[in-house]
Amino acid sequence: MTDYQIFEAGDVVLQRGATLRNCQLAYKTFGALNAAKDNAIVYPTWYSGQHTDNEWLIGEGRALDPKKYFIIVPNMLGNGLSSSPSNMPEPYNGPRFPQVTACDNVRLQHRLVTEVFGIKRLPLVTGWSMGALQTFHWGALYPDMVERIAPFCGSAKCSRHNFVFLEGVKAALTADAAWNEGWYQEKPARGLRAMARVYAGWGFSQAFYREELDIKKLGFSSLEDFLVVFWEGSFLLKDANNLLAMLWTWQNGDISDNELYKGDFKKALGAIKAKAYVMPAQTDLYFPPEDSQFEVAHMPDAEYIPFASIWGHSAGGPGTNPEDVKFLDGKLKELLSS
Amino acid sequence: MTDYQIFEAGDVVLQRGATLRNCQLAYKTFGALNAAKDNAIVYPTWYSGQHTDNEWLIGEGRALDPKKYFIIVPNMLGNGLSSSPSNMPEPYNGPRFPQVTACDNVRLQHRLVTEVFGIKRLPLVTGWSMGALQTFHWGALYPDMVERIAPFCGSAKCSRHNFVFLEGVKAALTADAAWNEGWYQEKPARGLRAMARVYAGWGFSQAFYREELDIKKLGFSSLEDFLVVFWEGSFLLKDANNLLAMLWTWQNGDISDNELYKGDFKKALGAIKAKAYVMPAQTDLYFPPEDSQFEVAHMPDAEYIPFASIWGHSAGGPGTNPEDVKFLDGKLKELLSS
Repeated sequence: MTDYQIFEAGDVVLQRGATLRNCQLAYKTFGALNAAKDNAIVYPTWYSGQHTDNEWLIGEGRALDPKKYFIIVPNMLGNGLSSSPSNMPEPYNGPRFPQVTACDNVRLQHRLVTEVFGIKRLPLVTGWSMGALQTFHWGALYPDMVERIAPFCGSAKCSRHNFVFLEGVKAALTADAAWNEGWYQEKPARGLRAMARVYAGWGFSQAFYREELDIKKLGFSSLEDFLVVFWEGSFLLKDANNLLAMLWTWQNGDISDNELYKGDFKKALGAIKAKAYVMPAQTDLYFPPEDSQFEVAHMPDAEYIPFASIWGHSAGGPGTNPEDVKFLDGKLKELLSS
Repeated sequence: MTDYQIFEAGDVVLQRGATLRNCQLAYKTFGALNAAKDNAIVYPTWYSGQHTDNEWLIGEGRALDPKKYFIIVPNMLGNGLSSSPSNMPEPYNGPRFPQVTACDNVRLQHRLVTEVFGIKRLPLVTGWSMGALQTFHWGALYPDMVERIAPFCGSAKCSRHNFVFLEGVKAALTADAAWNEGWYQEKPARGLRAMARVYAGWGFSQAFYREELDIKKLGFSSLEDFLVVFWEGSFLLKDANNLLAMLWTWQNGDISDNELYKGDFKKALGAIKAKAYVMPAQTDLYFPPEDSQFEVAHMPDAEYIPFASIWGHSAGGPGTNPEDVKFLDGKLKELLSS
């Protein structure tokens, strides 16, 4: 028994040349598609997250209200539910899983939305972090289909600093000999724990730690308890090759890296017709507000709306801080009613 | 032939209980001590740095002018020149090297300054990063001896976020099985390289990478070239146990963690009589300006003077950006003439 559906996409030729045969896109929907088929919202997943990790933003009375909207949560390729290193049969299994771009993901999601549901217009695409990356891609790849986008705590292109942060994360995981170039029998636990500890410094802001919100708000008994249980505990549940596959997707994210825009980032931003709320967190250490400001300045109908939060990247998700969720939900309501 | 001297300190009882027998403090001096013995400046080293890595700030016409001042650069314990995991004989060698605090370091430096040179007053103590940590310690431990301090890009106490960043660095190094709990025969190169890549995201700011200063100012041919040559190249030269020993010193740095202040951080800050220029970099990712502002607010005679630089932590050293060096040198001249 699963709580999600599979879109059998057949053989999908990827941007970088490989073909994902019998490609599967796992997704979950909330609410019902109306007769006009004009009430669908696409809400992609984030790095290492699955559809269940997106549910905190969905609910009656919320902006993403399943009584009103048909909300589709597509799982990113590589996340363990859609086609991934951990579930692909040989020969594209494990570390041989091909390079998948955010563009590949969104084109596959577009097929789901159009082929399975016959949807022609989307009132909103939204997402956190790598979900925001996919949201930007929806805006740039399907400008006539997407009416609104709300990418939060993410970017339209992986910045050089973000790339370097991810190099550190990757290096920590792959320093573990048990990783064995991806051909592990048992999980490389030491590497996963190291990766988690590296991530811990980036995932929340300096001020979050200064104010001891790990203890005072999240209820951990000490900083070390937070590092072991919240951070290591989360990463130990993930497959190392899946994490590395999605990391590659992230590092190579760029809305202009396709035949439409040929690397012209400003052109790709300028092509986004959707009304956009671009929402960084002011204290996000890897998606700093300056990158969002640049994006907004080059988009025709975008507003820059930062989270005034000390939760850093985690201001945007996954629903960790109630005040940030309230702010986000309010802004999504405002955007949807515009 | 070496370019430094050794202070043979004998058996040094450390704060955490071990005795460093035949403890050696390596140091280098520049200029001459005057007859009144009132022209000495102490300028401690930074994390993994040695005295040669401090020389960029010293020179004729500079604030630290050896024609005018007697500049003493003491090497931090654990840095490979002073007593360290890499040079201690059994049984305190390698990973058995005892826990050394910044307080231990500064008390040892005080012995050098008083016992070897007979100095009673110091016109200035200054240092970058962990050198700043030691500088704050000088101010708090010897308030009647130190006339001025100029800690730059550092703090008087390791913040919780800084601690977490260092946990990531440590986890990356120690994820390498070749590290072997410190009993390696050959250096754990994979772990050192991983540590370097983690460090790379922290050592410069997001804006530094955004502006491609690694290429445009530092002359590397690509981002990867910068990561391999600048970052991995630096860390591969260091001994892993030395790095871990100094990392412990850093994580446990706190000017109030001693019998004088018994953990009362504000009291320790309040005891610093020296005129102080506290100089963070506005874009430093691990010593954010807010922590410096807190320190200045609780020190009786301190000014908050940030580097307006996008070089992040590297605004302060080691002499990498000429404009930052000029700013720093100007401020040190101003402080010394006050």
